[in-house]
Amino acid sequence: MNISMYQASAPRFANILKNLSALLDKAQAHCEAKKIDPSAITADRLYPDMFPFTRQVQIACDTAKGVVARLAGVTVPKHEDTEQTLDELKARIAITVDFVRSFRPEQLDGTEDKDVTLKLGQREVTWKGMQYLLGHALPNFYFHVATAYGILRHNGVPLGKRDYLGNP
Amino acid sequence: MNISMYQASAPRFANILKNLSALLDKAQAHCEAKKIDPSAITADRLYPDMFPFTRQVQIACDTAKGVVARLAGVTVPKHEDTEQTLDELKARIAITVDFVRSFRPEQLDGTEDKDVTLKLGQREVTWKGMQYLLGHALPNFYFHVATAYGILRHNGVPLGKRDYLGNP
Repeated sequence: MNISMYQASAPRFANILKNLSALLDKAQAHCEAKKIDPSAITADRLYPDMFPFTRQVQIACDTAKGVVARLAGVTVPKHEDTEQTLDELKARIAITVDFVRSFRPEQLDGTEDKDVTLKLGQREVTWKGMQYLLGHALPNFYFHVATAYGILRHNGVPLGKRDYLGNP
Repeated sequence: MNISMYQASAPRFANILKNLSALLDKAQAHCEAKKIDPSAITADRLYPDMFPFTRQVQIACDTAKGVVARLAGVTVPKHEDTEQTLDELKARIAITVDFVRSFRPEQLDGTEDKDVTLKLGQREVTWKGMQYLLGHALPNFYFHVATAYGILRHNGVPLGKRDYLGNP
């Protein structure tokens, strides 16, 4: 087994997104047990000018789908960011996992040097495929999942790092 | 340029650790400007049973040094986890970056199938090199850096995600 653009992307995104969905299950169970309105958690943020929990989940999904689509040269599917409940967020994660899992290794392998152009706010940035995956997308993806985890923990949802890592 | 165990590890760790050190500079400047005791930040955590800021930084460093050492078959350097101040944490990051940067590609490349055994609490886990890097170490590394970032943001340190990502 060699490391490859596929190995470093699709299965990694799918695993962590699956774990993220399980974090949402635990958040739901916690809200039910403690009679907490789930919107107190989904709208929460670590600081007023940071994104709330919902947006952290959406961006994690967008990062994952964007990588596999752009590397494979497929149109990035558009999702409307209308999710508000934990169930809606779980559905968003599920369609993202299905999309990521639909890619075969030969669609992603060999894209190390492929030009990938991204709009980041006002500016356009072009990376080579490997730099995009390793230097931008993976740190960004894990950032948003870890921040979502941090918001849940900050709100008292009982989780451990193994819930985040899963069984890779 | 092909993706390789080296490309997916040493330069990534070095880049993000360098960014983490710059986050600490901004935390220091913020504390000075606002007359905040830095220990209010270094001892802070997102929830009482989570690790404080200092430990998040230490674990990020340990994850990085552990990967390159284990993959290369070199003894993992021991650091005593005595850091308390931002300056001490920056020194810890700096020796870790120096260690990570001391590895050459040929020491890490080709270690995809190498057995790596880790003690995680009470249990011992053995992974193949690629699974260890992609499935355990990278998500773990980014988790602790993002959590350190989250603690700083939660305490009002003015940062943006570009400070975390740097110029990869």
